[in-house]
Amino acid sequence: MTATADPLNDRDARVHALLEGTEARALLILSAAGDDPDRSWFTAPAKLGETLVVVPAGGAARLGFVTPMERDEAAATGLDLLTPEALDVARWSRDAQGAGAFLADLAAQALRLSGVAAGRIALGGRLPFGTAREVLTVLEREGWSFVSAAEPLLRARKRKSAAEIHELRRVNKVVERAFRRVAALLAAATARAGELWLEGERLRVGRLKSEVAVLFASAGLDQPRGNILAPAEEGGVPHTSGTPDRVLLPRETLIVDLFPRGWLFSDCTRTFCVGEAPERVVRAHRDVLAALKLAHALARPGARGWDLQERICAHFAESAHPTPISSPGTVSGYVHGLGHGVGLELHEFPSFKKDAGLEGELEVGDVLTLEPGLYEPGADGYGVRLEDLVCLGADGAETLTRIPYDLDPSAWDSAAHP
Amino acid sequence: MTATADPLNDRDARVHALLEGTEARALLILSAAGDDPDRSWFTAPAKLGETLVVVPAGGAARLGFVTPMERDEAAATGLDLLTPEALDVARWSRDAQGAGAFLADLAAQALRLSGVAAGRIALGGRLPFGTAREVLTVLEREGWSFVSAAEPLLRARKRKSAAEIHELRRVNKVVERAFRRVAALLAAATARAGELWLEGERLRVGRLKSEVAVLFASAGLDQPRGNILAPAEEGGVPHTSGTPDRVLLPRETLIVDLFPRGWLFSDCTRTFCVGEAPERVVRAHRDVLAALKLAHALARPGARGWDLQERICAHFAESAHPTPISSPGTVSGYVHGLGHGVGLELHEFPSFKKDAGLEGELEVGDVLTLEPGLYEPGADGYGVRLEDLVCLGADGAETLTRIPYDLDPSAWDSAAHP
Repeated sequence: MTATADPLNDRDARVHALLEGTEARALLILSAAGDDPDRSWFTAPAKLGETLVVVPAGGAARLGFVTPMERDEAAATGLDLLTPEALDVARWSRDAQGAGAFLADLAAQALRLSGVAAGRIALGGRLPFGTAREVLTVLEREGWSFVSAAEPLLRARKRKSAAEIHELRRVNKVVERAFRRVAALLAAATARAGELWLEGERLRVGRLKSEVAVLFASAGLDQPRGNILAPAEEGGVPHTSGTPDRVLLPRETLIVDLFPRGWLFSDCTRTFCVGEAPERVVRAHRDVLAALKLAHALARPGARGWDLQERICAHFAESAHPTPISSPGTVSGYVHGLGHGVGLELHEFPSFKKDAGLEGELEVGDVLTLEPGLYEPGADGYGVRLEDLVCLGADGAETLTRIPYDLDPSAWDSAAHP
Repeated sequence: MTATADPLNDRDARVHALLEGTEARALLILSAAGDDPDRSWFTAPAKLGETLVVVPAGGAARLGFVTPMERDEAAATGLDLLTPEALDVARWSRDAQGAGAFLADLAAQALRLSGVAAGRIALGGRLPFGTAREVLTVLEREGWSFVSAAEPLLRARKRKSAAEIHELRRVNKVVERAFRRVAALLAAATARAGELWLEGERLRVGRLKSEVAVLFASAGLDQPRGNILAPAEEGGVPHTSGTPDRVLLPRETLIVDLFPRGWLFSDCTRTFCVGEAPERVVRAHRDVLAALKLAHALARPGARGWDLQERICAHFAESAHPTPISSPGTVSGYVHGLGHGVGLELHEFPSFKKDAGLEGELEVGDVLTLEPGLYEPGADGYGVRLEDLVCLGADGAETLTRIPYDLDPSAWDSAAHP
C-alpha cells in the first residue's frame, strides 16, 4: 500500500500548536455522558460515556474511561488508553465528595500518569456548569491553573481532514436524496379546496418530517438538532422548526432545512412553493438565488467571511431589502449571517462575523454553508432560503450540494443541478 | 374542563426547595447549542440553541434567548421570556472579549432583569468546560458566588410528572414494537453453513440496527446515545455497541439494548439465541430472569437501590456467579449495577449505588430500569441481560415493559408477557 500523505490530517500537530499558543502544559478534555464534539474529534464514531482526553505538550493523546464496560469501545478509537484501573476509579469513586470532586481526582490522576507537572492546562470538553465549577475549585487548590481551549479547539478543527471531507460528502449525498424525496412528494400532491392532499389525506408538515426521518435513519444518520420544515409565516422566522399538524397549502412557501449527522453534520436548505408562486415569492427567490451565486463566486481561500457578508448585504440592499448592515436587528428582509463551517458541530468555523479573527478567514480544507434568505414575518409572512455546502480545496471551491434550486417541486424531476 | 391536580407537576416548588437547600438567590442555567437536560426540563420539546434560564428564589422561570430567529420556538415553551433586546445581546456581542465573557455579560443582565442582587447563585446547564471557566471568572469579579446545581437538579427531576410518565409510556410502547420486529426478523432467519440468512442475504447486525432506526424514526424517536446489538463475545462486554458488518450465527447470544428518545428516553434489553441455546446460556438466562423477577418484587417505594443491588448480588452468588460485592472489579458474572432512573437523561436518579444519599431511595413517581445480566468476556464469551422499565405509582410498582423474555425469537409470536 502506498502511503498517501494527508496534509490536513495533522490533529496532533494542531493540538501542540494550540498548547504553544495558550502556553499550557497539556490539553484536558472532560466529557460528561452524551455528545461532546471536543472528545469526538479524537474518538468518533465510538460511543462513550463519561471520559477524558489528555494531550501533554509534545506527547500523544490518551483516552481515559471510567468503566470496564466501555473497554472495547475505548480500544476501537486506537488511542493510548488510561484504564479505570490505571485511573484508580474505584478509589476516587469511594472517597470523592460529589461528581465534581470525583472528576477532579480523575483528571489529576490522568495528568500525573501523563507526566504533566502542576501548572497551566487548557480546558476542553462539555460538562454540567456546576460540575465544571467544582472540578476547577479542587484542581486550583492542588496548584493547577487554567486557560480555555473552547475557541482554540474550534479553530484547530476548522480545516477538515480527508477522512472528515469523505464523511461530509457521504452525509451530504443522503441529504440530497431526502430533498429529492420531499420534492417528489410535493410534486405528487394535489390541491383540493385550498389544501394539499396526498394519497387520500391532507398533506401535513409531519408527513414530510416522518419521511425525512425514516430516510435518514435507513442511511444511519440521526438529527440531534432536529430539522426545519416551515410553511408560510412559520418560515418567516428562520429557526422555527415547523408545526407537524399543519396542513400544507398551495401557493405558500415551504422552507426545508435539513441538518442530519453521521459522525459529522451536513446542512442544506431549499424552498418550495406548490402551484403558481405569488409574485413576491418569485422575486424573493430570484434575489436569494442571485445572492447565493454571488456568494459561490466569492467563497475562495483567502477571502474573509465578513467581506462576503458585506457583499451579500450590498446585493440585497440594491433590491431594497433591509439587511443587518442597513437595519441592525431587522426581522424582515435578509436577517442573518451568510453561513458557517460544518463538522462535528452544526455551527463551526469559519465565521462570517464582523469581529472574527483568524477564524474569519476562508482556508483550504474548510467546509462551509452559504445560505442567503429573505423573510417576512407576521400573519401574511413567508420565507425563502437557499443553502449549499461548499468545500474549499487546493484547486478552488467545490459545491458539494448538487440538487435543483426550483421553487416548483414538479420542475425537480427534469432539472439538473444548474 | 375540570382542573386535575398533579401532585408531581410541581417543578417550580422543587426549584424553590433547591434554592433553599443550596442557599442561593437564583438558579442560573446556561446552555450552549445542543442538548441540555437541565434546560429541557423547562423547555422540552422546543428546539433551542444558546439560551439561559433564570429562576429567582420565590419567582417564576424566565427563558433568555440570543437571536430573534428563535423567538417562536422560545414562545412555544410558555415561559416568561427575556428577549435578545431585553438582554442587550447586540451590546455584549460587540463589546465582550470571547464566548465566555459574552455569556457572563448575558447572565449578569438576565439576573439584573430578574431582580437578583449580587450574591450566591446555583449553576445548572451544559457548557464547554473552558467557556464555563471564563464565565465564572468574569462573574466572580462582579461579586457573584456559586454553588453547583448539577446534582440538586438531578434530584429535583427524580420523581416524574404525569406528563413525563405519559411520554415515557409512549416511547416505551415504540420500544416494545422494535423488539417484536427484531424477534420476528430473527425468527424468520434460517441457518446455512453455520450462519444466519434472511431474504437471500447473510443476516448482519447492521440490518437489525437499520430496521430499529427506521422504526424509531417513523415514530418520531431518535437514538442520541446509539444502541446495543451485541452478539456473542461482543455482548460479553456490557457497553459494546455491536459491529454492523458482523454476521449473526445460530446458537450464539445476541444482546439487544435499545434506548431511544422522544423528549424523554426509554430503555429496554432482551437477549436472543436462534436455534438450540447452549446449556451455559440457558442457565445464565434462567438465573438472570430469576434475578429480574426478584428485583421486580423488591422495587417498591421506600426501598433503597443499594439494598436491591445487595439482594441481587446475593441471588447471583447462590449460583456461584462472581458479583461486584464478592469480586470487586469483576468483568465476568454479574458486573454492574441493577438499574437507574430514566428521563431527560438516559441515566438519572434513583441511584443504585452504595454511597447514595436521598437519591438512592425509591419513591412514588420514580421511573427506573431493572437490568440484571451475566457476562463472560473473551474469545468464547457471551452475554445475557434482561431489562424492564418500572414506574412506581401510589398503588405500587407497574412494569411498563410488556414483551416476552424468551431467548428463542420464534417463541415470541405466541408468548404473552409473563
